[in-house]
Amino acid sequence: MPRPYRAESWFHMCDVRSSFRKGTNMPAVAGYNSSVVLEAVRKREGLSRSDIAKHTGLTAQTVSNIVRKLLDDGLIEETGTQAGRSGKPRTLLQLRADSRFALGVHLDPIVTTIVLVNIAGEVVARSHPAITGDAGAAIRDIADSCERLIASSGVDRSAVIGLGLAMPGPLDVRTDTVLNPPNLNGWHEVPVVERLSEALDMPVILEKDVTAACYGESWVGGGAADRDFLFFYLGFGLSFGVSRHGDVYRGHTGNEGEIGHIVVDVDGRECWCGQRGCVSISCDPTAIVLKAVQRGVYDGAEEIDLTDMFAINGRFNDVCSKARQGDKTCDAILHETGRGIGRAAVILSDLFDIDHIVLGGPNWKQLEHAYLEEIEPMLRTKTVMRHVHDFKVTSTAVGDDVAALGAAVSVLDRKLSPKAAPLRFVRE
Amino acid sequence: MPRPYRAESWFHMCDVRSSFRKGTNMPAVAGYNSSVVLEAVRKREGLSRSDIAKHTGLTAQTVSNIVRKLLDDGLIEETGTQAGRSGKPRTLLQLRADSRFALGVHLDPIVTTIVLVNIAGEVVARSHPAITGDAGAAIRDIADSCERLIASSGVDRSAVIGLGLAMPGPLDVRTDTVLNPPNLNGWHEVPVVERLSEALDMPVILEKDVTAACYGESWVGGGAADRDFLFFYLGFGLSFGVSRHGDVYRGHTGNEGEIGHIVVDVDGRECWCGQRGCVSISCDPTAIVLKAVQRGVYDGAEEIDLTDMFAINGRFNDVCSKARQGDKTCDAILHETGRGIGRAAVILSDLFDIDHIVLGGPNWKQLEHAYLEEIEPMLRTKTVMRHVHDFKVTSTAVGDDVAALGAAVSVLDRKLSPKAAPLRFVRE
Ligand SMILES: [Zn+2]
Ligand SMILES: [Zn+2]
Repeated sequence: MPRPYRAESWFHMCDVRSSFRKGTNMPAVAGYNSSVVLEAVRKREGLSRSDIAKHTGLTAQTVSNIVRKLLDDGLIEETGTQAGRSGKPRTLLQLRADSRFALGVHLDPIVTTIVLVNIAGEVVARSHPAITGDAGAAIRDIADSCERLIASSGVDRSAVIGLGLAMPGPLDVRTDTVLNPPNLNGWHEVPVVERLSEALDMPVILEKDVTAACYGESWVGGGAADRDFLFFYLGFGLSFGVSRHGDVYRGHTGNEGEIGHIVVDVDGRECWCGQRGCVSISCDPTAIVLKAVQRGVYDGAEEIDLTDMFAINGRFNDVCSKARQGDKTCDAILHETGRGIGRAAVILSDLFDIDHIVLGGPNWKQLEHAYLEEIEPMLRTKTVMRHVHDFKVTSTAVGDDVAALGAAVSVLDRKLSPKAAPLRFVRE
Repeated sequence: MPRPYRAESWFHMCDVRSSFRKGTNMPAVAGYNSSVVLEAVRKREGLSRSDIAKHTGLTAQTVSNIVRKLLDDGLIEETGTQAGRSGKPRTLLQLRADSRFALGVHLDPIVTTIVLVNIAGEVVARSHPAITGDAGAAIRDIADSCERLIASSGVDRSAVIGLGLAMPGPLDVRTDTVLNPPNLNGWHEVPVVERLSEALDMPVILEKDVTAACYGESWVGGGAADRDFLFFYLGFGLSFGVSRHGDVYRGHTGNEGEIGHIVVDVDGRECWCGQRGCVSISCDPTAIVLKAVQRGVYDGAEEIDLTDMFAINGRFNDVCSKARQGDKTCDAILHETGRGIGRAAVILSDLFDIDHIVLGGPNWKQLEHAYLEEIEPMLRTKTVMRHVHDFKVTSTAVGDDVAALGAAVSVLDRKLSPKAAPLRFVRE
């Protein structure tokens, strides 16, 4: 078990609470250098103090001071010595993975995931509680489920430094409020960060689901952290995120990634926005179910209530399973919506000049087979950039936990990763 | 005139040449801290060493060392003293604006702009040479025009630290090559950076035109540097750039901002990409001229050669001028294409969750009146984010020089602005 830590010094180091509030603001330089050192130790095993000084450009004295503080705080440990080039022994350092933890909650219309993650980004405990009811009930249930998960994991509760909550948008990170997500009933302008952090007595940060997924993929996903990638999130809704050099952007209010009204089918259904064939009404689970009904997959046997997400989701699963079992109509529908997602990928890849598309989210596993066949050929033939570079399309390296993990990671990230710290002076 | 400087020490401080090559790579921490101090002095007049230490979080000793170096290099100067709070006199520092310069070249299909810019971001000399012919001739003409501009400006040539070249894409910043821009004849896979830097014997960096424009707007444009904004570039082609917290992104190959195939008119013209009404074929100058011809503005009197950019441009100017003079058909055409740009702005504003749209580029001035009437109402009624935040639509604060200035600024920026310096360790 991790030894108790002095919460005050930990928070002092980069004032987690206040940097949570400010959203995009950054810790002071002292905390920045400390993060640089911690990230160095996290990413490479067997670094000595002089290795760190060499790699970071910090002075030996600064590194030495920071290392002493990190040792005191129990975040890293000395693991022995090795002969250096000069013959002088070097003391090697490594991260104490289980010294601190963060909770990650992915509140999804269909299934909620809670994970407990250590500072190495490893999931040490997981649950899938049924969270229903309105915001008040949901917040209580989340808090209770988190307490139960910590208790059953055996992790010292005081070592849990915060909770990251991933939810569907729109939300507003300026006020830490969930606005009015179309796919969650009973949530309307809820100050969820305040209420959940009161219920749990720990710092809480709020992220849009796709932003959290992007964090998760970036932090632990198969080396993707050091590349730029677009993350397509396929859940009950569709959205995307961008990771560049390991940084994930949230936008002005935390809602970056709204792709809904990119047209992918000029002959498609009419949309409230005045266009036709917007990706949100052409490729989401509801669209897939509607296509199946229209093409007689169900012989008109049953009515489907288009306002019942669980009914839609059940039918969506059924279409995917029929496609896997060889139903030609269902298979054709998935290939068609896969081309729609491919068209959106073409637009986004050109917009961002990013050559790597990662796909994930709750519905990805079922769509993977058909979609992977469609997206790459679209990129190779329809992008403006096809003459400039090649493309890579991959499935999430993290899997189903990606958004929950990412929410936890976004808490750890504020602590462990040296963030861009441009000390800009506002002109007066 | 600026006093001569020791080029070696200047380049040593953050190895401009090599960081140009690496594109997104960052100077070492030593150079980073130096940039932090320089930016502090640049953005605020009348800072003392202790003010700088307080604002940057650097130690008094570090600030003192950096300031001494910057004084030695002639980049800043002491301007007198002021009584501090403790009664102890504080020595105030300020930027020596004319201590270093950069050239900015905006090579546009229609008009080329060259500016000489000091490190305060002020244009001290400007020319509009006629650059025609193929790449070889154009590069020679650019070099000659730059030499003439420096000579006529009276600036010491050795104080010019580099040249930024803004050009239409596609290009490839990985190889510093211009690929095959559809609007420039005689340019095909040209290693323009190498050839221009040989011709001028100074470092050259290559930027896509809109990226440069975004830099320009971000650096000197009316306080926009401290806000996030989308920059719409309206020239012979259409593209956009993004500035976030003063950083401008280039994408994997330097081509970020390709909006061409966002559909803005589902009933529009067919495009090679398989869709209809893509913004590039619905709203560019050629589309505007075609609409005018189709609606009888020219009584079918003349044929227009659609491959002759100067002919198209002349006719485009004519349509704009007719609209200004009250021609209802021409005015309706501009409002129509303005709504198309508005539709693209809706998509992009939602994608990036950015509430501020800046418009500029060679054709902006002529379109401004009609477009400003159309874009904001579109954002207020068609974005998903309309319930989350308000929108701001403004004209470039820089004006016609924005891309040339931005190209120069992108040279200065690598020197003067503390860039995000995430010292990431690649997992091995
Ligand atoms: Zn729509
Ligand atoms: Zn197209």
